[in-house]
Amino acid sequence: MTYRNPVPTVDIIVELIDRPSRPIILIERKNPPLGWAIPGGFVDYGESVETAAVREAKEEIGLQVELIEQFHVYSAPDRDPRKHTLSIVFLATGTGEPQAADDAKNLNIFNLWEIPTNLCFDHDQILRDYRRYRHYQVRPRY
Amino acid sequence: MTYRNPVPTVDIIVELIDRPSRPIILIERKNPPLGWAIPGGFVDYGESVETAAVREAKEEIGLQVELIEQFHVYSAPDRDPRKHTLSIVFLATGTGEPQAADDAKNLNIFNLWEIPTNLCFDHDQILRDYRRYRHYQVRPRY
Repeated sequence: MTYRNPVPTVDIIVELIDRPSRPIILIERKNPPLGWAIPGGFVDYGESVETAAVREAKEEIGLQVELIEQFHVYSAPDRDPRKHTLSIVFLATGTGEPQAADDAKNLNIFNLWEIPTNLCFDHDQILRDYRRYRHYQVRPRY
Repeated sequence: MTYRNPVPTVDIIVELIDRPSRPIILIERKNPPLGWAIPGGFVDYGESVETAAVREAKEEIGLQVELIEQFHVYSAPDRDPRKHTLSIVFLATGTGEPQAADDAKNLNIFNLWEIPTNLCFDHDQILRDYRRYRHYQVRPRY
């Protein structure tokens, strides 16, 4: 089956608001491409991107998150080595103890000044843009 | 062919910056659903959403637009009567005389206080959100 269109996904940057400095959650992927990434996944047919974002956060990190806002859409054709995907990135808040599950083999909690690089996909770029927004309220523009 | 994922589209709100009050362009659709709409179309496989937005503006209204920013993503499963689509809405600027072509049978230029209702898809909602943003700098949030 060949897609004629990029496949939509969501990624969710979850800030843990019951901890100092609102750290965020990254997951270690169970399936290729292996490595660390922002939690997320494919949007199902018949599901809004908001529903998909809440569902994926529940599935991968075990938290009932609250969406704050859409951040930005990333869609470079080479961003995913498997096929052309686009990602709608959400900002969300969560509380409590996240648990890795589903496509996530492991997870870790990072302060904003500790975020690792060499993440999967274009997630380094996404987190650079996120940090710029969180520190300076500057969104990606053209 | 059944899609397992919503199909990504782009819509482009083009402000004509060489005219008083920066009016916007709406098109009359040539194909069902018939009616007035924001210019836009499907994102091709291998094409970023930015490339798709510039291409669709060129095809439907004959203008080389400049993208300003992403506005918001709309993805309610019933927003398009044909199938589940999601739309990444862009704000852009253009100058000169737009010409309807391709999927656009006709076009018209509207000041912000003259925008019609009963548009196709969820474009009434999109333009309400856009007007709120343009007047008050308030984005759609949750």
